[in-house]
Amino acid sequence: MSIPRIALTPGEPAGVGPDLCIQLAQQEQACQLIAIADPELLQQRAEQLGLPLTIQLFDIDQAVNKQQAGTITVLPINLSEPAICGRLNPANSRYVLETIRQATLGCMSGAFAGMVTGPVHKGAINDAGIPFSGHTEFIAELTGGTPVMMLATPGLRVALATTHLPLSEVSAAITPDSLTTIIRLLDRDLRQRFAIDKPKILVCGLNPHAGESGHLGREEIDTIEPTLERLRCEGINLYGPLPADTLFTPKYLETADAVLAMYHDQGLPVLKYKGFGQAVNITLGLPIVRTSVDHGTALELAGTGKANLGSLRFALQTALDMIPHL
Amino acid sequence: MSIPRIALTPGEPAGVGPDLCIQLAQQEQACQLIAIADPELLQQRAEQLGLPLTIQLFDIDQAVNKQQAGTITVLPINLSEPAICGRLNPANSRYVLETIRQATLGCMSGAFAGMVTGPVHKGAINDAGIPFSGHTEFIAELTGGTPVMMLATPGLRVALATTHLPLSEVSAAITPDSLTTIIRLLDRDLRQRFAIDKPKILVCGLNPHAGESGHLGREEIDTIEPTLERLRCEGINLYGPLPADTLFTPKYLETADAVLAMYHDQGLPVLKYKGFGQAVNITLGLPIVRTSVDHGTALELAGTGKANLGSLRFALQTALDMIPHL
Repeated sequence: MSIPRIALTPGEPAGVGPDLCIQLAQQEQACQLIAIADPELLQQRAEQLGLPLTIQLFDIDQAVNKQQAGTITVLPINLSEPAICGRLNPANSRYVLETIRQATLGCMSGAFAGMVTGPVHKGAINDAGIPFSGHTEFIAELTGGTPVMMLATPGLRVALATTHLPLSEVSAAITPDSLTTIIRLLDRDLRQRFAIDKPKILVCGLNPHAGESGHLGREEIDTIEPTLERLRCEGINLYGPLPADTLFTPKYLETADAVLAMYHDQGLPVLKYKGFGQAVNITLGLPIVRTSVDHGTALELAGTGKANLGSLRFALQTALDMIPHL
Repeated sequence: MSIPRIALTPGEPAGVGPDLCIQLAQQEQACQLIAIADPELLQQRAEQLGLPLTIQLFDIDQAVNKQQAGTITVLPINLSEPAICGRLNPANSRYVLETIRQATLGCMSGAFAGMVTGPVHKGAINDAGIPFSGHTEFIAELTGGTPVMMLATPGLRVALATTHLPLSEVSAAITPDSLTTIIRLLDRDLRQRFAIDKPKILVCGLNPHAGESGHLGREEIDTIEPTLERLRCEGINLYGPLPADTLFTPKYLETADAVLAMYHDQGLPVLKYKGFGQAVNITLGLPIVRTSVDHGTALELAGTGKANLGSLRFALQTALDMIPHL
């Protein structure tokens, strides 16, 4: 089995992203890690953390070797201005986006088997005058495809039918078309990326008690149930719509390969509660493998050595699991 | 310290409610349990379960004694028709409501120190042509007061700013007035009923990421934040609004006496996940102590002996904890 190359973008340079990449590089990895970042930033941050770091510049023609402990391979992109821990600087926003762009293009060209992203700061990018609605949307624009957001922690996967929408707009965004697209992609990627033969997907209702036979909202009856029924005829193994506070109990979860929640705060609190410090954000529906940490930039922890590596480590492991093993 | 009398309503007679009351009566209790039910129903169900049960009829003038194992005191209300396990019968709906009414009136008169309710079936009551929107509303109509729904499990209490509403109506229901009323009652009852000196309450945002500075909805900025600020000036210890998937992580929860979620499926999945089989539904804001099981009628388990007593046991313990100890 060949050793895969995985692109790693530290994200916001003033946050914990660079720290986490350096912490990750302290251990030998089953892949070659290609950090797409400013090498000086990494070197300085490593010194600040008191961690050894030997940087090798990326050369696509070089043999692919496992990443040795204390080393990292870097595809260099230069910061516009030096990064100061904890201090956002919109001048570096183009740098952040360029690292993600290079990782994505490298995945598309086959140079990288997948990409793992650190946390970015949406506000800092917007403050630079760049319209940016999120990591995932930015990547999807380069790759094509319809992104489906799924978070995972050992024992639980939760995909979302809607993501970053005001709550008042959620109901209107749940349509037969949107649900059909997302469920088909979720089913396909659970099969293809996670090698699950006939994934069992539990689907939440939109309303409390899944609408209670229409007494608490009709979206289940008018939209969700008929859509699930059509998709079952295509052979997709769907259960629901179930009340979210019934579905998210061990008895149900033990039997499921994934949960589809209708919106962000219906699905993610349980996942974060269960998996805090060890959760990964996975983008399905794209032609590339992309995982991400599930946390933010934690500006106040940058350079302190206190950042928790759990999520990045799990994000890398998940990306490796998702790569087709030929 | 005197021994309290607690009213216990088994709820729907075709469900597990009677089973659970009989199971509870197998153990000695620190109170006198007054089951408000049809004594024949309890006797028959006990035989079906193979459990001993000695019934004493309730006499308010009798001395109050701890409930002995294998006995129960009954305030008799007769079923209209014999109950058959698992088979809903709208003919018995008036019976169900009468048991709740007697328990509530007894709490108001001081005959009972509090009431613990088993599960009812809203659909069966509605099918009898009786408008009934829920246990809690029915009780509140008799007692006056504004009910606030709070679920609890060891280590976590979650109150709800809105309860059984279609998701699309939640945003409009969150107003400065509604939030103010609910938070004041929550704070008051945590002090008075749970003897917490200065309760620390974590408040969820309405939108994902608590609106992300208005990018994902403005309710936090326009309604929630100014309301919390005013209530802080009254001395209420409020944190938030916080993103729900940040708040529901151990680091935050460890410091909190209660969480206020903005709606049902934002708050209850984590609570049910954490506390399955040991969660209680508490009605705050009323002049009486009322707790309830957190589960439904589980029709298919009635008479089988497989019903899980955890929630009813915890509901009784919580009611006893909430009674003023003079």
